[in-house]
Amino acid sequence: MNTVDDVWALIDREVKALPLQRVPLDQAPGRTLGEEIVADADLPAFSRSSIDGFALAGDAPAGSYRIVGEVKPGSPPVAAPKAGDALKIYTGSALPESGVGLVMVEDAALEGDTLTTRRAASTQLIRVRASQMEKGEILLPAGMEILPAAVALLATVGASAPLVSPRPRAAHLVTGSEIVPVESTPEAGQIRDSNSSLILALLAEAGAERCGHFHATESVEEGVKALSQTDADIFLISGGASVGAYDGTGEILRQLGFTIHSAKVKSRPGKPLIFATRGAQVAFGLPGNPLAHFVCFHLFVRRVIDLMAGKAPQQRVLVAIDGPPPQPDPRETWWPAMVRADQGQLVALPLPWVDSSDLSGIPLANALLRVSSEPRNGLVEALLFGSLLV
Amino acid sequence: MNTVDDVWALIDREVKALPLQRVPLDQAPGRTLGEEIVADADLPAFSRSSIDGFALAGDAPAGSYRIVGEVKPGSPPVAAPKAGDALKIYTGSALPESGVGLVMVEDAALEGDTLTTRRAASTQLIRVRASQMEKGEILLPAGMEILPAAVALLATVGASAPLVSPRPRAAHLVTGSEIVPVESTPEAGQIRDSNSSLILALLAEAGAERCGHFHATESVEEGVKALSQTDADIFLISGGASVGAYDGTGEILRQLGFTIHSAKVKSRPGKPLIFATRGAQVAFGLPGNPLAHFVCFHLFVRRVIDLMAGKAPQQRVLVAIDGPPPQPDPRETWWPAMVRADQGQLVALPLPWVDSSDLSGIPLANALLRVSSEPRNGLVEALLFGSLLV
Repeated sequence: MNTVDDVWALIDREVKALPLQRVPLDQAPGRTLGEEIVADADLPAFSRSSIDGFALAGDAPAGSYRIVGEVKPGSPPVAAPKAGDALKIYTGSALPESGVGLVMVEDAALEGDTLTTRRAASTQLIRVRASQMEKGEILLPAGMEILPAAVALLATVGASAPLVSPRPRAAHLVTGSEIVPVESTPEAGQIRDSNSSLILALLAEAGAERCGHFHATESVEEGVKALSQTDADIFLISGGASVGAYDGTGEILRQLGFTIHSAKVKSRPGKPLIFATRGAQVAFGLPGNPLAHFVCFHLFVRRVIDLMAGKAPQQRVLVAIDGPPPQPDPRETWWPAMVRADQGQLVALPLPWVDSSDLSGIPLANALLRVSSEPRNGLVEALLFGSLLV
Repeated sequence: MNTVDDVWALIDREVKALPLQRVPLDQAPGRTLGEEIVADADLPAFSRSSIDGFALAGDAPAGSYRIVGEVKPGSPPVAAPKAGDALKIYTGSALPESGVGLVMVEDAALEGDTLTTRRAASTQLIRVRASQMEKGEILLPAGMEILPAAVALLATVGASAPLVSPRPRAAHLVTGSEIVPVESTPEAGQIRDSNSSLILALLAEAGAERCGHFHATESVEEGVKALSQTDADIFLISGGASVGAYDGTGEILRQLGFTIHSAKVKSRPGKPLIFATRGAQVAFGLPGNPLAHFVCFHLFVRRVIDLMAGKAPQQRVLVAIDGPPPQPDPRETWWPAMVRADQGQLVALPLPWVDSSDLSGIPLANALLRVSSEPRNGLVEALLFGSLLV
């Protein structure tokens, strides 16, 4: 039986980044930049004032000057003032390339056209042309995640439609005749479909989109028919991955032309996990239990989403355990936990785990602890997937 | 002049959570739950099988049995099998409340109607009615952030339209006649509007929506007219917060009927920050420089968004510094950094900071370091706003 590491290696071997696309800048956040971005002009493109105040000739000393004009932001630069003259300027006003010094409005007094400065004019208050970057220099390398500050930098150089990784698109098939919609009141033997809501939220959190959602009862034909309708990047099938007569996920995937690379994984929870591919498309058969769903998504589906989106797979970090560590099991266990920062240390609180059908103890889980053997230096591996709760 | 702590205290005094609303479950992730959720039935509501296999009478020993029927998932429970009889059952199949034990399919052989079991039947394989929770027990408390696992729990109890906090809605006014759209090529003295793209991305990251976007050149009337059109929860005005003749943010806010609580903050960057309110609405005048924008958003705007969305304000964590700490300044400095986890410790790498117009060194910043005095035990406060880069 494959270990978790084996399945990760299979995923890394089989899954490729999706073809890049251009999107409007407002759709770029969170995606991977697919091209190197260079400055389209010097940054700043012209010398400009960093203050509201006055422009004087060179390093004019404190003294009395005559206002001969102003430079509003957005106007082209004018010639440097002559000795004795001064210009009103504002934050962002364009300045001549040389021969000018600035005095802040707080360091001067203006009466009519007469300016009295209390300090010498300074060139330190000028944002000099090309002081950040010269035209043609690399501003952002390809492969970086586009966070808000990078969005601003893309805007600065006019990259209004950057080349980026697409959001992977996933179709979700829920199997099982006991599953009824969330809005309904289950009859005897029925349960509400919590896995569809879970998967939808996990996909959104991971930056993927759900492009199709289907429910099949126990027949393989129904599942095959549903998933034949979609060209998703990722196919997720909930339930039906174990050995019972009505568990047809493997058969559905085979009939759809998928190659099954792994049908079981030696982990707790999540043993009957299926990983399959068809060309560039990926499919998972997820064990139907909610906790196994949750864990398998974070361990495996998230990795596929990240790789398709041009990102490095999430790495584990080492954390200390608050209290006694969870008991090891012959199968490697991925134990839900809340990781927080405490005096510069990452500390994990393992959460109660009754059985793999029960999420009621883990609504605030932000990590899975890898419980396989004794902790190293008192630290255990954790896969973080939420923000640090502090 | 107010300190950062003073402005936080003003924000905490003035800002209230927005009125709750019901939303479809698929719009609930990331919001604050506004009501206590109780189990609408026992969880599970009926005793069910956790395996594919066979149901036998009580603790029937290993031996030979006759298959007399099956219970498909979704069907109502049947009576417990009599001694010598067995039922085919599947993961999720409903079981009688008592008098039944299970054998996994892996521990049995079936030939025609004759079942041979290699183990005694076990009640351990049954998920017993109410074993997770009894009807009426509290499943989720009010006030918790709705993460994906909580979405699944809401679905389980049929909470298809939970009461949640709304997403705060922000209107954004960019001032300055030097500002041109991202798609255009700036002429002499002009720069592209990077702050609008930055604010849009930061709002989305914080869980808020942009409900209006305006550009005014330097006239106060233009700004007042633009912002009169919107009923946003939050008004953001970029630029125009300092003392020059064309800086009219304070005047715009006064004409709109806002009360200005703070017009300057003793911090670097971000000194000319305005915080104002009008009833339940909040306005900020943000210093026009990109880095000041970035820092003031994380320090102040994000806090307002969190409070309006029913969340606790983000807390700072303590981190170690990689290399020499940034130099303190008479003004408290908020220094962009990348925080990572290293051997169980949080470690911050301060990023290059040329001047407050320059974001080119911080596209991957995920924290601001509070540089005010000497570090305590070698640790400094950090405000984290992205995921841990590892």
